[in-house]
Amino acid sequence: MRIITISREFGSGGRELGKRLAGLLGIDYYDREIISAIARQNGLDEDYVEMALEKRDWQAMPLTFGRSFAGINGMQQMQTNLLVAQKHVMERIAEAGKDCVIVGRNADVLLADKKPFRIFVCAGMEEKIRRCMERASEGEDIFRKGVEQNIRRIDKARARTREILGGGKWGEANAYHLTVNTEGWDMEELALAVKEFVLRWYGR
Amino acid sequence: MRIITISREFGSGGRELGKRLAGLLGIDYYDREIISAIARQNGLDEDYVEMALEKRDWQAMPLTFGRSFAGINGMQQMQTNLLVAQKHVMERIAEAGKDCVIVGRNADVLLADKKPFRIFVCAGMEEKIRRCMERASEGEDIFRKGVEQNIRRIDKARARTREILGGGKWGEANAYHLTVNTEGWDMEELALAVKEFVLRWYGR
Repeated sequence: MRIITISREFGSGGRELGKRLAGLLGIDYYDREIISAIARQNGLDEDYVEMALEKRDWQAMPLTFGRSFAGINGMQQMQTNLLVAQKHVMERIAEAGKDCVIVGRNADVLLADKKPFRIFVCAGMEEKIRRCMERASEGEDIFRKGVEQNIRRIDKARARTREILGGGKWGEANAYHLTVNTEGWDMEELALAVKEFVLRWYGR
Repeated sequence: MRIITISREFGSGGRELGKRLAGLLGIDYYDREIISAIARQNGLDEDYVEMALEKRDWQAMPLTFGRSFAGINGMQQMQTNLLVAQKHVMERIAEAGKDCVIVGRNADVLLADKKPFRIFVCAGMEEKIRRCMERASEGEDIFRKGVEQNIRRIDKARARTREILGGGKWGEANAYHLTVNTEGWDMEELALAVKEFVLRWYGR
């Protein structure tokens, strides 16, 4: 079974690349589906699960959001439970034995024993800001500075979660088989290039 | 003109990859040739030029090595001169207008205006140590710990030189188009994979 994991900087286009790659390879694709499964199994709100797993916005999150009142300690306990639930969901995906692409969720660390092909996706800050601003819905108030702060905050949280899980430094070249910069690429062309690279790895 | 630059961690096999890539693409390859040109033009010893450019071993280098006595200040002046000489050699390579692969020497920074395709090559520490120990000549006294220290020292010097040249953080994903980990690859297969990736970039 071939599992390809995609870790990515916020705004780099890693999710789009992962989706296209799965399409080109004709294999399953997991991203939001993992959050949905955890939420369903635990009777929680999807957004709550996502926030809790990325360990961000503790202050901003309503304490009663998605469950009865919980203090900060309760929240940390909840996060731990959700990380365990996430690992279980991923193990079930792996047990199904079908080739797949998994975007985010520290799949590279959580499924390390399945020897996934680990990809990291990045881009320069200006490119990421541009991409985020394009993605914002029409009329949504979105300011360059806020976007940049958001990118930094989310990536910091991702790095921290990876560290908690014992996966070594997030984004460090050594931790991945392949690191690609989306800048200057047409996403479909890049997906083709990555596909060829991955097929050489499995064919070696 | 297509210039492909290869920056690499010491012991990662980046030089071998660069050589094979140039061979597969049928284009010129520069590495040691740049040092030789600088040494020849300045009437200096090649090893001296290399050491001075990597700014390492100031303490260990005989002060009279390759030229008349020079204090530490003189050495720093010499390094600056050599960095300028290096830039000139590279500009001449670029002016020749022929496609090429350049390994090391901060070519990605020095030839930034030529928009090179920038590759970074890495590997896990254990893999790099193994590669270095294999490379050591028969009977040469070489100890694991010394090898590791050497790898760290050389890479630190490379990072510092890149910083001096204003190229941003050495080894950071964003600074390159493509980062590859040589671990687990047959080098010829990896060169083929990188070749395909590069051709997609230029064909996009």
